[in-house]
Amino acid sequence: MTVKQWLTEDFEAGDLPLYCGETLRSARLHYHQIGELNAPKDNLILLPTYYGGAATGNHPWVGRNSPLDPDEYCIVIPSLLGAGESSSPSNTPGEQAGPGFPTVSLYDNVMLQKRLVDEVFGGASIALVMGWSMGGMQALQWGCLFPQQVRSVLATCCTARCYPHNQVFLEGVKAALTCDQNFQGGHYQNPPEHGLKAFGRVYAGWAYSQAFFRHELWRSLGFNSIEALLQFWEQDHLTQDANNLLTVLDTWQRGNISDNPVFKGNYNSALNAITMPTRVMPSTTDLYFTAEDARQDAHQMPGAAFDALTSDWGHIAGGAGREPQSHQKILAAAQSLLPEIEP
Amino acid sequence: MTVKQWLTEDFEAGDLPLYCGETLRSARLHYHQIGELNAPKDNLILLPTYYGGAATGNHPWVGRNSPLDPDEYCIVIPSLLGAGESSSPSNTPGEQAGPGFPTVSLYDNVMLQKRLVDEVFGGASIALVMGWSMGGMQALQWGCLFPQQVRSVLATCCTARCYPHNQVFLEGVKAALTCDQNFQGGHYQNPPEHGLKAFGRVYAGWAYSQAFFRHELWRSLGFNSIEALLQFWEQDHLTQDANNLLTVLDTWQRGNISDNPVFKGNYNSALNAITMPTRVMPSTTDLYFTAEDARQDAHQMPGAAFDALTSDWGHIAGGAGREPQSHQKILAAAQSLLPEIEP
Repeated sequence: MTVKQWLTEDFEAGDLPLYCGETLRSARLHYHQIGELNAPKDNLILLPTYYGGAATGNHPWVGRNSPLDPDEYCIVIPSLLGAGESSSPSNTPGEQAGPGFPTVSLYDNVMLQKRLVDEVFGGASIALVMGWSMGGMQALQWGCLFPQQVRSVLATCCTARCYPHNQVFLEGVKAALTCDQNFQGGHYQNPPEHGLKAFGRVYAGWAYSQAFFRHELWRSLGFNSIEALLQFWEQDHLTQDANNLLTVLDTWQRGNISDNPVFKGNYNSALNAITMPTRVMPSTTDLYFTAEDARQDAHQMPGAAFDALTSDWGHIAGGAGREPQSHQKILAAAQSLLPEIEP
Repeated sequence: MTVKQWLTEDFEAGDLPLYCGETLRSARLHYHQIGELNAPKDNLILLPTYYGGAATGNHPWVGRNSPLDPDEYCIVIPSLLGAGESSSPSNTPGEQAGPGFPTVSLYDNVMLQKRLVDEVFGGASIALVMGWSMGGMQALQWGCLFPQQVRSVLATCCTARCYPHNQVFLEGVKAALTCDQNFQGGHYQNPPEHGLKAFGRVYAGWAYSQAFFRHELWRSLGFNSIEALLQFWEQDHLTQDANNLLTVLDTWQRGNISDNPVFKGNYNSALNAITMPTRVMPSTTDLYFTAEDARQDAHQMPGAAFDALTSDWGHIAGGAGREPQSHQKILAAAQSLLPEIEP
């Protein structure tokens, strides 16, 4: 009995027409895979990534002690366009480099992932598509676009569109980043370090909740002070590329599962198309993907159960390996959603 | 019967020792006054100011149709140190100008106001001290320091100290402002306009609530889009001085009614000293001065009733003339607190 290893792959998609009308040249979808597709091609699990996350950020969901068991399932983590692993401002040559990178939508990401599933995984039936935050938005986009191919959906700390207050929060972090003169409209030679740090520092107030700070839960992350936590956020953002951050932020801010040629902006119609067993799991203390908005969305999805994460961790609750209690609750939900499959 | 007019006055306090150990040179407390002190000197109402606010911001509380009637009461609005009207970085000459301005505490503000009341208003008994946000923090500071002189307190959208998440929110707006290279550590020749705009844009997401945006309540303010609201916040902050903003932000962030020689950091002791009739009125949707924190505080004040403003307006609910329903509810609370006085 061998322990399965993660494979790191790239799907070269060629020139990719985007919803905005532009074409992304030599598009590349980076993904991680563990486990193999079975003969009936019905054991695929997709774990799309979250804002600021790399594919490895979803690894903690997976393992032999998890319902997401690579001995049973073929588990694939597709990386977001713009996030630094798939085609992004930071790794694209020529005129689409940096600030020349085109506008990418939620729909573009999912349609590219659809090509991956069809061309690399033989049009597999998807046992579960599951994600946190923007990963959850992608999961819901998958559900409404491909109800015949997606057998279940698990979406944590997200909504099916970016609601207005969430958009305003994002305007704030964007303003904090771009007010650094070194940003130079994206044409920076050196990273806009003040802006990246400000971005991280503003973001930290939104990512957790009032209760997280009230109860000093940052101590459980190994920090001795709030300032140490904020400095961690600064340092984490110094490792990110500013144009990448803004590209994916734009995808998020415009995110709407009905904003595409299929649903033509009819939001209820898109929600109504989510007919497979679905779990919508916001955090009760999430400040931007609020439980109230998620509840409204879930009520319009015929297949959905609403099951909030009662947590003081705010938005962070739904991330892989972040808060132990929510992590376990999410895995239990995944277990209940995963259909029996042939090994 | 004449209509009373607002008087604009300055109280010259001379060199003012501050809690931080420094001395503010030639300190000046700017205030507005309407109505006259009566013979028993027991009809004084104090309305301390809020963050970013000028004295005029409290005028809407006052009028013949309000319980704060200048025909009955002598109403005084003292301006915060650092806010631009009282001694501030922007109006102080010499080495205490700009970034040389000393650290000012909640205690310093209230002790200076105490001198105003004693030296200009003959040590009047205060019928009511009432404020929103930092104005409410000052009201609570008055209540615990001078329970013999303050007969009632009304504090909206505030807590008796700046709780940790509130501090983190303030770190965010501060980072957004200071990441503008033109800020130059406060030694700017021209205003750091990018930073001021970023400050306003980040702040806007915190000032209202998710529900405010969900229900498009910005329309009631005359805006046609969220972007128009955000641009108003930008423009409003362009009129402010960056060092002033940071001075008062620091007062707020360190704000704690027990951080002074009287209570020596014993928070419960300070709360317990608020024995006069007091109303604590947070907004149910305030994102930084939360109802939960305010409730905890109120339960430790022997004189306090907790009476939340059920509002979608977030922090803004408690401001004078902002949301009509909360405005009326606050005035009704003031009416019930105001003792009968001799005309």
